[in-house]
Amino acid sequence: MNRRQFLGSAAAVSLASAASFARAHGHADYHHHHDMQPAAASAYTAVRQTAAHCLDAGQVCLTHCLSLLTQGDTSMSDCAVAVRQMLALCGAVHDLAAQNSPLTRDAAKVCLEACKQCAKACKEHSAHHAECKACYESCLDCIKECEKLAA
Amino acid sequence: MNRRQFLGSAAAVSLASAASFARAHGHADYHHHHDMQPAAASAYTAVRQTAAHCLDAGQVCLTHCLSLLTQGDTSMSDCAVAVRQMLALCGAVHDLAAQNSPLTRDAAKVCLEACKQCAKACKEHSAHHAECKACYESCLDCIKECEKLAA
Amino acid sequence: MNRRQFLGSAAAVSLASAASFARAHGHADYHHHHDMQPAAASAYTAVRQTAAHCLDAGQVCLTHCLSLLTQGDTSMSDCAVAVRQMLALCGAVHDLAAQNSPLTRDAAKVCLEACKQCAKACKEHSAHHAECKACYESCLDCIKECEKLAA
Amino acid sequence: MNRRQFLGSAAAVSLASAASFARAHGHADYHHHHDMQPAAASAYTAVRQTAAHCLDAGQVCLTHCLSLLTQGDTSMSDCAVAVRQMLALCGAVHDLAAQNSPLTRDAAKVCLEACKQCAKACKEHSAHHAECKACYESCLDCIKECEKLAA
Repeated sequence: MNRRQFLGSAAAVSLASAASFARAHGHADYHHHHDMQPAAASAYTAVRQTAAHCLDAGQVCLTHCLSLLTQGDTSMSDCAVAVRQMLALCGAVHDLAAQNSPLTRDAAKVCLEACKQCAKACKEHSAHHAECKACYESCLDCIKECEKLAA
Repeated sequence: MNRRQFLGSAAAVSLASAASFARAHGHADYHHHHDMQPAAASAYTAVRQTAAHCLDAGQVCLTHCLSLLTQGDTSMSDCAVAVRQMLALCGAVHDLAAQNSPLTRDAAKVCLEACKQCAKACKEHSAHHAECKACYESCLDCIKECEKLAA
Repeated sequence: MNRRQFLGSAAAVSLASAASFARAHGHADYHHHHDMQPAAASAYTAVRQTAAHCLDAGQVCLTHCLSLLTQGDTSMSDCAVAVRQMLALCGAVHDLAAQNSPLTRDAAKVCLEACKQCAKACKEHSAHHAECKACYESCLDCIKECEKLAA
Repeated sequence: MNRRQFLGSAAAVSLASAASFARAHGHADYHHHHDMQPAAASAYTAVRQTAAHCLDAGQVCLTHCLSLLTQGDTSMSDCAVAVRQMLALCGAVHDLAAQNSPLTRDAAKVCLEACKQCAKACKEHSAHHAECKACYESCLDCIKECEKLAA
């Protein structure tokens, strides 16, 4: 499955992120004792990964929406507006999470709402449009991680 | 492996992108005959996927560089400058590829150079820093795809 | 003054944005009666303009910070971290505001906090570094508009 | 005029950018002798400013295009596609210019083409839509600066 593989695949970057997080919290000294730095847990890794997936699937979905809209097919209207809004917020959450920023949590609460709206709009088309299906599934994953973080 | 899985995992989004590409080139009619649109080949799918990976790994790498630089460790100087330059160009290539823009090719030529500089800077640290290793590997993949596209 | 001129100068774009906002709220019909569409009030115009200024000043400030950090001058550490966090949130607020998204308000609340932290970090250097001064002033303006919107 | 004021207004940020550029080229010492760093010339200041303006006007223009497309008005089709392509490239040029990256020049050559296509698409509507007019004018300015840089 696409989503599972994506989430699994980001492991190396996750470990890297976690190591960076550890250092940012004062556990920097260990890396003189190892060839490769071990990874500590980062609260923001999962949300960063799912947001990254949304950014990729969302740009493709927006292209798809524009392609139909420019042919006069207005059935993609809600989808186009929702995905563009989602892109703005997933972009912020992704970058904040990669920065290990304490504001990631608050931004994730707003992103959660944007992903819900985008998932709802994409769901309508997910049985017929592969782009919407991919975007819908990436939003579902991001919703889960934003909810965990915001809890 | 991280890179292999990532490249494999983006399949669903790739199919979606390819379908969009087909429509943009005047083969839109078929989607009335199928429940889910089939996928045509897109020249930009692979470069989009590798650029997406660079964007994720690069932001994590920049955080890592800043974390060391702010501790006075200037060994990450070249890496920080190169990764930020790479982020600007992989961002453009990603979005253009998702748009099926004919300018993707020209942008990929510039991105190729940015990824080469970033890979070179990250390589120095890839044995000791997981963030640099992940960024280095994502750049190697992006270089390959940019070269194919620019050929 | 830089800030005054910038805020004044964005008038044409503001009018455009306001016209778009009016249409999005169902007052689209008037534009068949005029050569150029008149502008209705948009709640998001001012915050969009100040966020745009922050994005420009912030990237320049980050370059300045990196330039000093790579020379071993760690006095810019807080500034570099804060400005990168601000860039992520001003980017989201800018794009949401340009979209007339109802989520602009919630995003502005998080952006407000990022701008406050960035302004505080930049203020320390604003007497000696033109980049920090420009970034500091753009953050002050953005803080004001985020506060108005979030009120 | 909007464009004139914008270009004039960015003076403080330009000076900051220029100072940063000077330091990056080994003239860092002078800033110990002054309260505020003087500005050296940067080849990238003007293109950064015009690209920033394009990013702001372009997002507003895309909202305008989507607003009409979702009402079934396909006259904005070329404009929507061209402005999204322009946004990807002006984003890269802006960030590279702010970084004083030597790749700014090559990216500006690709951006030049994107701005030409966007200006052409917007021009059709510039007499009737304030958003398109603002985007058209920002593209004209960016074209000039990209041409100067690429010459």
